[in-house]
Amino acid sequence: MSEAVADIGLIGLAVMGQNLVLNMNDKGFTVAVYNRTVEKVDNFLANEAKGTKVVGAHSIKELAAKLKKPRKVIMLVKAGDAVDSFIKQCMENGFEPGDILIDGGNSHYPDSIRRTKELEAKGFLFVGSGVSGGEEGARYGPSLMPGGSTAAWPAIKEIFQKTAAQAYGEPCCDWVGETGAGHYVKMVHNGIEYGDMQVIAEAYDILKRGLGLHEDEIATIFDKWNKGVLDSFLIDITTNILRFKDDDGEPLVTKILDSAGQKGTGKWTAIAALDAGTPVTLIGEAVFARCLSSIKSERVRASKVISGPLKEPFRGDKQQFIDDLEQALYASKIISYTQGFMLMRETAKEMKWNLNYAGIARMWRGGCIIKSVFLKDITAAYERTPNLESLLFDDFFNKAVHKAQPGWRRVVAQSALWGIPTPAFSTALAFFDGYRSEVVSANILQAQRDYFGAHTFRVLPGKENSRLPAGQDVHINWTGRGGNVSASSYNA
Amino acid sequence: MSEAVADIGLIGLAVMGQNLVLNMNDKGFTVAVYNRTVEKVDNFLANEAKGTKVVGAHSIKELAAKLKKPRKVIMLVKAGDAVDSFIKQCMENGFEPGDILIDGGNSHYPDSIRRTKELEAKGFLFVGSGVSGGEEGARYGPSLMPGGSTAAWPAIKEIFQKTAAQAYGEPCCDWVGETGAGHYVKMVHNGIEYGDMQVIAEAYDILKRGLGLHEDEIATIFDKWNKGVLDSFLIDITTNILRFKDDDGEPLVTKILDSAGQKGTGKWTAIAALDAGTPVTLIGEAVFARCLSSIKSERVRASKVISGPLKEPFRGDKQQFIDDLEQALYASKIISYTQGFMLMRETAKEMKWNLNYAGIARMWRGGCIIKSVFLKDITAAYERTPNLESLLFDDFFNKAVHKAQPGWRRVVAQSALWGIPTPAFSTALAFFDGYRSEVVSANILQAQRDYFGAHTFRVLPGKENSRLPAGQDVHINWTGRGGNVSASSYNA
Repeated sequence: MSEAVADIGLIGLAVMGQNLVLNMNDKGFTVAVYNRTVEKVDNFLANEAKGTKVVGAHSIKELAAKLKKPRKVIMLVKAGDAVDSFIKQCMENGFEPGDILIDGGNSHYPDSIRRTKELEAKGFLFVGSGVSGGEEGARYGPSLMPGGSTAAWPAIKEIFQKTAAQAYGEPCCDWVGETGAGHYVKMVHNGIEYGDMQVIAEAYDILKRGLGLHEDEIATIFDKWNKGVLDSFLIDITTNILRFKDDDGEPLVTKILDSAGQKGTGKWTAIAALDAGTPVTLIGEAVFARCLSSIKSERVRASKVISGPLKEPFRGDKQQFIDDLEQALYASKIISYTQGFMLMRETAKEMKWNLNYAGIARMWRGGCIIKSVFLKDITAAYERTPNLESLLFDDFFNKAVHKAQPGWRRVVAQSALWGIPTPAFSTALAFFDGYRSEVVSANILQAQRDYFGAHTFRVLPGKENSRLPAGQDVHINWTGRGGNVSASSYNA
Repeated sequence: MSEAVADIGLIGLAVMGQNLVLNMNDKGFTVAVYNRTVEKVDNFLANEAKGTKVVGAHSIKELAAKLKKPRKVIMLVKAGDAVDSFIKQCMENGFEPGDILIDGGNSHYPDSIRRTKELEAKGFLFVGSGVSGGEEGARYGPSLMPGGSTAAWPAIKEIFQKTAAQAYGEPCCDWVGETGAGHYVKMVHNGIEYGDMQVIAEAYDILKRGLGLHEDEIATIFDKWNKGVLDSFLIDITTNILRFKDDDGEPLVTKILDSAGQKGTGKWTAIAALDAGTPVTLIGEAVFARCLSSIKSERVRASKVISGPLKEPFRGDKQQFIDDLEQALYASKIISYTQGFMLMRETAKEMKWNLNYAGIARMWRGGCIIKSVFLKDITAAYERTPNLESLLFDDFFNKAVHKAQPGWRRVVAQSALWGIPTPAFSTALAFFDGYRSEVVSANILQAQRDYFGAHTFRVLPGKENSRLPAGQDVHINWTGRGGNVSASSYNA
């Protein structure tokens, strides 16, 4: 007879799963483990888990029997059908209403929304949790972003918060929100990671091709930046990367093919932004920059027939320009996170999720790829004002972006003249200048749409008159032909 | 008894449908019409179609009886279920294998792919045709972009090409390609339209806020541009818009709310680009610019707490800067169309469509919103080189973009310093500078991904050695910890 001894179960003993089990064991929890290929269970117990309190199960039924009630089980399996299959197996093999099924894989959030509803309809609780930090994070403390059935949180809180990374004395784990909120926030996290990486790549490019610096000199600059507002895991590892030499003494990074992979969550974030109608431009440009990098052979052919501006040596104050660049990178990051939080806010509204924004920033402060001092400041901003409309409205970031502004503009302008691509820096600045504009040039678009398609427009507040009444869709007969009927059939 | 007298049938007598019928009648074709609310048929015959050869049908069965074989019928009904429903009704009410069912609505291309397959499996032929130009285009000559069952083309070619707009002595209609190609190309057309509108709005903004010009002065500039390389419908109507006065003598456009609508095909194009992994950045930014314009109240609040750079009067040569701006707009359009054709090329590869690129440009030269002299030059480029890899490789556009480059850079740089948002001009320049770079900074991204996630990278050609063999996925143990095993479970 099996005894219900385990605090939590885990299905899926790939490296991520094994590491998470060992981590939970270290934190004092008894974990029961199961894997579809059951030899893996025995191997794990005989090797990596030797001497721990981990218990094995050779079937889902046995796993269920070994779990204390309400049962909690984390699945760390391939996103997609495998998750649904294990959920079904659990429900048919000893798990009962009230038990908590947790998906810790890289699921797309619509699946987590669906699963929450399906499981709740049958009396179970479901949690879809983002897990970030890779294999090392899983072993020593990941960032955990759980969402789903809110009633599950009290039962899993202690395990999750102790297993997660700790940063600034607090766990990098809090309850995110309802249904698919956990996986949604993980997706946005990954999108932001794309953006953070892209702005670093642009800074490197400017220092190398613009100022003509060597990787060692760039590393020294990054090292200095890593002690200031840009202090972060990604700046830190980039410093190490820049210093890493191949056997011949050359920086290894200069031998790496400039063709970046992208498939998953960055693209999802950009698509989610388009669907939500939220201008998350920096992540969008970061994804497209990877696409452009990947058509290497076409770029090589283009480089032979398209020339850039004449290369003139930099005549200004080099140190001043490097300081400007630090501010350009910082300001672009502020815009990227502003956009990311705008997207979460907009989606929360649509999905009726109660997102915990300070908690989200807190979860990202440690354990994951984007961990940084910057996220401590974002956490503080949302703790000051839980319903902050925009990061740029927070005093700290408002001051920071104003301070960064002159240098940021100089870097964007200089790069345009040099012919060095800065899609992320530039789009961040364009967003900033549009965002702070009471009036933008979209009146032209609306006039055009009404002119060619009778799409109607509204009057600008303060300009109302009898022809342009407030709050009404107006169509103007611009040409004297065509009449005053507004159209509905033509889409533009 | 009904007699088979009609050359083609049309289902759906909204304004677009009525106008297309009258247009086909003018071109000498006998059209049979049907509408779900059948009184509309009688009203149309008694009024708009009085004195024409148009014949009415009160049922699908009667419509079928009145059509010569193989029957051809165009549906101009709401995209979505209505199309499937009418297809079903036709197949059950007198239409026979070999007949041609044509969807002229705003369908999303995956639906047209599906419908082509479903209908061909039953022996019917299906055509999904983009129809552009709005109600006026439908009446006097639209741009028609038919795709689907290639066997249908010879049977509909004469009707389609005579009904379409004529430009430079040729019809704005040609066979686009297989299955969903017609609606796909129409989608890209609309995305490009978003981009064309956005670059005009940016030019207006720079002239107004940057140089401080009045709408009348801006109209004079646009008028001049409309006689040069920018000669196009959209520049033309923008000139008229800028000159249009409200009753008090103020330019009406200054009273239009700066909040632009967007829902449909621009967004689809950006999503299609992300899915295809093609950097269609200008359309992406145009869509996001509309999103940003639409959060008007948040922008108003932001404008009160975020200030821009100090406004300094323009000290340079004004006319030179205006000429620079013309080149910036022109170069940005070249990039936008380059990206649009890249997207079509990439999708054609994936879908195994034989796209007719010269034909596509020819179809867009007249009848639609983006019609322009520019499209005559694109047509010529693809006629010179049907399999042109990139517009920028064509001599004409290669020269044009080199000529435009210095002014374009000055405009982007000056706008950044002024604080005027130019998301489309800037992203076009960033793309151009990335595209013409043999080596971009994505080596940094690949190093980071290998560092934190063991994602592996490849060696830059020419830098191979025993540690970095050619054509192999390499993982480096950057830290001395962690080992040399590459990871697969972590997605970034």
